[in-house]
Amino acid sequence: MPVRTAVIGATGYAGAELVRILSGHPLSELTMITSRQYAGALFSDIYPAMAGIVNLRCQAFSENAVSQGADVIFTALPHKASMGIVPGLIDQGKKVIDLSADFRFKDPAIYEAWYEPHQAKDLLKSAVYGLAEIYGDGIRKASLVGNPGCYPTSVLLPLLPLVKAPFVDLHNIVADSKSGTSGAGRSVSLASLFCEVNEGFKAYKVAEHRHNPEMDEVLSLFSGRAVRITFTPHLVPMTRGMLTTIYIGLKKPVSTEDVASCLDSYYANKPFVRLCPPGGFPNTTHVRGTNYCDIGFKVAQHTRRLIVVSAIDNLVKGASGQAVQNMNIMLGFPETAGLDHVPFPL
Amino acid sequence: MPVRTAVIGATGYAGAELVRILSGHPLSELTMITSRQYAGALFSDIYPAMAGIVNLRCQAFSENAVSQGADVIFTALPHKASMGIVPGLIDQGKKVIDLSADFRFKDPAIYEAWYEPHQAKDLLKSAVYGLAEIYGDGIRKASLVGNPGCYPTSVLLPLLPLVKAPFVDLHNIVADSKSGTSGAGRSVSLASLFCEVNEGFKAYKVAEHRHNPEMDEVLSLFSGRAVRITFTPHLVPMTRGMLTTIYIGLKKPVSTEDVASCLDSYYANKPFVRLCPPGGFPNTTHVRGTNYCDIGFKVAQHTRRLIVVSAIDNLVKGASGQAVQNMNIMLGFPETAGLDHVPFPL
Amino acid sequence: MPVRTAVIGATGYAGAELVRILSGHPLSELTMITSRQYAGALFSDIYPAMAGIVNLRCQAFSENAVSQGADVIFTALPHKASMGIVPGLIDQGKKVIDLSADFRFKDPAIYEAWYEPHQAKDLLKSAVYGLAEIYGDGIRKASLVGNPGCYPTSVLLPLLPLVKAPFVDLHNIVADSKSGTSGAGRSVSLASLFCEVNEGFKAYKVAEHRHNPEMDEVLSLFSGRAVRITFTPHLVPMTRGMLTTIYIGLKKPVSTEDVASCLDSYYANKPFVRLCPPGGFPNTTHVRGTNYCDIGFKVAQHTRRLIVVSAIDNLVKGASGQAVQNMNIMLGFPETAGLDHVPFPL
Amino acid sequence: MPVRTAVIGATGYAGAELVRILSGHPLSELTMITSRQYAGALFSDIYPAMAGIVNLRCQAFSENAVSQGADVIFTALPHKASMGIVPGLIDQGKKVIDLSADFRFKDPAIYEAWYEPHQAKDLLKSAVYGLAEIYGDGIRKASLVGNPGCYPTSVLLPLLPLVKAPFVDLHNIVADSKSGTSGAGRSVSLASLFCEVNEGFKAYKVAEHRHNPEMDEVLSLFSGRAVRITFTPHLVPMTRGMLTTIYIGLKKPVSTEDVASCLDSYYANKPFVRLCPPGGFPNTTHVRGTNYCDIGFKVAQHTRRLIVVSAIDNLVKGASGQAVQNMNIMLGFPETAGLDHVPFPL
Repeated sequence: MPVRTAVIGATGYAGAELVRILSGHPLSELTMITSRQYAGALFSDIYPAMAGIVNLRCQAFSENAVSQGADVIFTALPHKASMGIVPGLIDQGKKVIDLSADFRFKDPAIYEAWYEPHQAKDLLKSAVYGLAEIYGDGIRKASLVGNPGCYPTSVLLPLLPLVKAPFVDLHNIVADSKSGTSGAGRSVSLASLFCEVNEGFKAYKVAEHRHNPEMDEVLSLFSGRAVRITFTPHLVPMTRGMLTTIYIGLKKPVSTEDVASCLDSYYANKPFVRLCPPGGFPNTTHVRGTNYCDIGFKVAQHTRRLIVVSAIDNLVKGASGQAVQNMNIMLGFPETAGLDHVPFPL
Repeated sequence: MPVRTAVIGATGYAGAELVRILSGHPLSELTMITSRQYAGALFSDIYPAMAGIVNLRCQAFSENAVSQGADVIFTALPHKASMGIVPGLIDQGKKVIDLSADFRFKDPAIYEAWYEPHQAKDLLKSAVYGLAEIYGDGIRKASLVGNPGCYPTSVLLPLLPLVKAPFVDLHNIVADSKSGTSGAGRSVSLASLFCEVNEGFKAYKVAEHRHNPEMDEVLSLFSGRAVRITFTPHLVPMTRGMLTTIYIGLKKPVSTEDVASCLDSYYANKPFVRLCPPGGFPNTTHVRGTNYCDIGFKVAQHTRRLIVVSAIDNLVKGASGQAVQNMNIMLGFPETAGLDHVPFPL
Repeated sequence: MPVRTAVIGATGYAGAELVRILSGHPLSELTMITSRQYAGALFSDIYPAMAGIVNLRCQAFSENAVSQGADVIFTALPHKASMGIVPGLIDQGKKVIDLSADFRFKDPAIYEAWYEPHQAKDLLKSAVYGLAEIYGDGIRKASLVGNPGCYPTSVLLPLLPLVKAPFVDLHNIVADSKSGTSGAGRSVSLASLFCEVNEGFKAYKVAEHRHNPEMDEVLSLFSGRAVRITFTPHLVPMTRGMLTTIYIGLKKPVSTEDVASCLDSYYANKPFVRLCPPGGFPNTTHVRGTNYCDIGFKVAQHTRRLIVVSAIDNLVKGASGQAVQNMNIMLGFPETAGLDHVPFPL
Repeated sequence: MPVRTAVIGATGYAGAELVRILSGHPLSELTMITSRQYAGALFSDIYPAMAGIVNLRCQAFSENAVSQGADVIFTALPHKASMGIVPGLIDQGKKVIDLSADFRFKDPAIYEAWYEPHQAKDLLKSAVYGLAEIYGDGIRKASLVGNPGCYPTSVLLPLLPLVKAPFVDLHNIVADSKSGTSGAGRSVSLASLFCEVNEGFKAYKVAEHRHNPEMDEVLSLFSGRAVRITFTPHLVPMTRGMLTTIYIGLKKPVSTEDVASCLDSYYANKPFVRLCPPGGFPNTTHVRGTNYCDIGFKVAQHTRRLIVVSAIDNLVKGASGQAVQNMNIMLGFPETAGLDHVPFPL
């Protein structure tokens, strides 16, 4: 019998992507979707692509109804809204995967410095950071997973396997990220209008994006040292996709083989990380619609730097796909269940 | 045991899309792919999106090898190239679905007027036009299917159910089609460069596109009357998708319900045609990556015209998806096998 | 001494385009810009592209201030807002070019059927429809010009020279238009978000767009007969540009030369209409940023139809460029003053 | 009397952009354009946007004809082709601005390491690197200008004013550049097809692009020290525009004011460099079609890094606009002559 799942906040882009993935998941039945704005509406009236495929109607959120109707609950709400309802669902014994930032931090002080006062600090201790390839063991036993941000996913997957290597200068790391526009979500704003985005490219929140402390905390906990990286996000005139170029200072010379071996030791058996062939680099088109993270790299000997490039679909591996991957791990399902989409060749 | 399939010409856009769909088909095993240009290369080196998913190597075409290795063969070759190899495959007892124009016409004279001398006229008699929703009975028994062109699919599916209706003026039909750029294929040409296409919109081959006689022949055979429609294709700066707006003169007033009833009588039970709710119109984004054809319409009473709009993904329902649907029908598989992709919400 | 100009509603897309064009106009000084939403702000803070070029600050609208500061006033306001302020400006003896629909109609009943009650009906008599190539004589003497809609411009320029020709069936005309997204303006709405528009194509307001009665009234007045055409607008995933494909039933056969001669007799000396060479068709990229209207055509003998295709930049010839052209005509300036932009080759 | 100009290689993207700019230049008459591929053709048949504006016909190159017909010659040819014809033109006493890499390097060994054997080494001594804001004094007296590459322009303009500052660590500089697709030129290749570029983002030639040594040589000569920076180019799915994000290690803390002052001291009176207001960052849309370079920056105190972002139009300031700016300087024209295009607001 399939597990019963619910999506809270189903009409935002991450929520709708959860609906897409869960609709095709062989071991899950999507029983309930909620939307404050569209309560009462057919999901397929809001997303006509889903006509004939998803026959659910949006409901207003009710802790009781959700708890009775579903066993695993995905909360795809804005920051702050999540921490208001997650504790109640956890109290009901549900498994929760939260896509907001509310349960990503171990240190509430960091969260509060970048977001707002935290209303459920107790849960931070047991919540597991849902970077599936790295924290799988914790996720397996977790009731609450804080699903990583899209930028941190694209930075941490290529970076974590390297930070303990002796050749890496932890104090000299730059991550330059480029994101498709769906990362801004479905909320209506001038800056997200087609004519404001199309045929343009810009940096934003330079060295002050809220995903920066998220990366820093994970890097610090993982490496056992205080790490701060320099991070700049950029906006690409396309819908889906995120490419991150990471520049790592080298403390000593390193060979291509050494780097490959570092990455390989982490990812050889991980189904969603693909290491590019030697000399190859990823392209966001190669991962669109999929849960893959593709990684390529180059050692720039003459400037003593290692350059690592990653590509993900920000809505899938960067949000909803990884959330479903986390569910699979939590429930002991095959990790790829419902996530084996064949990408478009173009 | 799954049916063994081969794709001849697997590295063009239609061929690669066949590889995508067949890779996820539960009742098919893709055993062989050929490419003249890339013989010897791994498919995933040409389409890195497929790394870890498709492990086939392109071969040069050999009738013997293909016939021994596969039971159903998709030929995704340029016009003329197909008719050179299809007869041999048919002689070997294979089922063939040809994506070129070579086996779409009943009257070789029309083919020859628009293409070139036909080298396999005998096969035209037994070849069935693969418009799956309309010619399913013939396809079921066919050995050779001439898969429809993308434009004809987008015009004929909304139009055929109407042409026998008493209110339709067969002599006053205009089809205005808009296609994504993938329709031009993967061959390298100046007109297909990003900078030549991006941020532009144009008509081309106005009233002289080779898909026009294809539509006219089908319309004429289907209606029993000589029909010629006016057809103009346009190029849209996007990768996938085709929208066609059809303007049909009315011989007498007609109600919305009458038109709906005409369309419904054909498509109520067809899994890949979705009729929009009253007043609704399709958008190519709603069908992207899927085998759906969405149809909406409006009766413009004051100008005595019926306007019907259809949307397909030109690479799927307009080419490779319909080809797989035809295979499903030929083999008695469920019609949707391997074609139940959930579309992106965005 | 240059004429002093003002733009009312300068921060919408049409208003900003007026600012662009007037900033480079050799015979005009832009003295005043107004914006309800951004009163007090530097224009270049809202449109940073203009930093160092436009040094004006937005003001709240004041009839007195505008009348004292400017001689020609462009009102780029939403429908209804215009008719609230235009009469006062006219009373002050100003010349006004209104970009809304408020002064485009001769018959207030049509306006009221499609928009709302009209508050300045008296002015409709003296207002001149600002289709510059056709109504230049009236514009020359006008105090108030109702600047045409973008769709009507793209339909009427190619169509008007033909409607009196004996071969044209006035009862069988279809106009299928495709517009870039800037036509939706700068107001913030879900449907205009990048991710909702990008990689999609759709029809909207099929046979019920408010520009349809505008075209019909002009066509009827011009031809002396009651004309109603069938019109469908579509949305193209690009910022600027509009292409219209017009299908005209033929009452009798006509030669290519006859059609060329019709068009040529109107446009041989018009600087902003370019007739494509025989067999050529326009592309919106060829007119981007310019005031050109490019026109091509084909006679489809076998279906007895004439197909005419036009391309304009919806923000220039379809709005602000034509408005400046109208000013040039009203003031006796060279018609091309400030409008001789060389287009991008790509 | 205007100076007579010629464009050699007028049908490539940089050449066509030269034609666009020179067509609107008030002090130049474009007398001659050449094209090997299109000799004999009207320019406006190749670029129909120019119909009615540019009435020149492409010629095959002839040193005599060009020397007799023009005083200033722009060579927009592929590398190697330029050095074959430039010496002859210089011998004829012409002023030449070369847009290839052939005359950008002082040290022929570097050129030869990255390109090919140099055939006109003598000219390297007198050729001036045409970064107009920095080397204006040399350009004023030069007969031959090596026009900078697009990437070097976007990196060097923001970087050069800083490299002599005591707070900058010259050994810790990363430049991460993102370019529109027109940078790949008009030559036909698979990788430049619309469907290969659209909706994708990738890095390429990571740490091995030929513009890297060009930057390094200029930085080294300018700073008097051997500088090597880490450089990665990326491809953006848009036509025009280049954004570069530069990460500079700090040897000691620096204030925002110090950095602003450094940049200001170079660019306060330079018409084509715009420094963003404090906290502001550039967007490629703000410079599209113009010769501007917009620059913004941020000091990331906690990671001891200075982040500088620049935006240019790769075809204008990155190629043809800067070439015309160089002509203006060489001839004593106002630096902005023919380059005062008002950008699109969108």
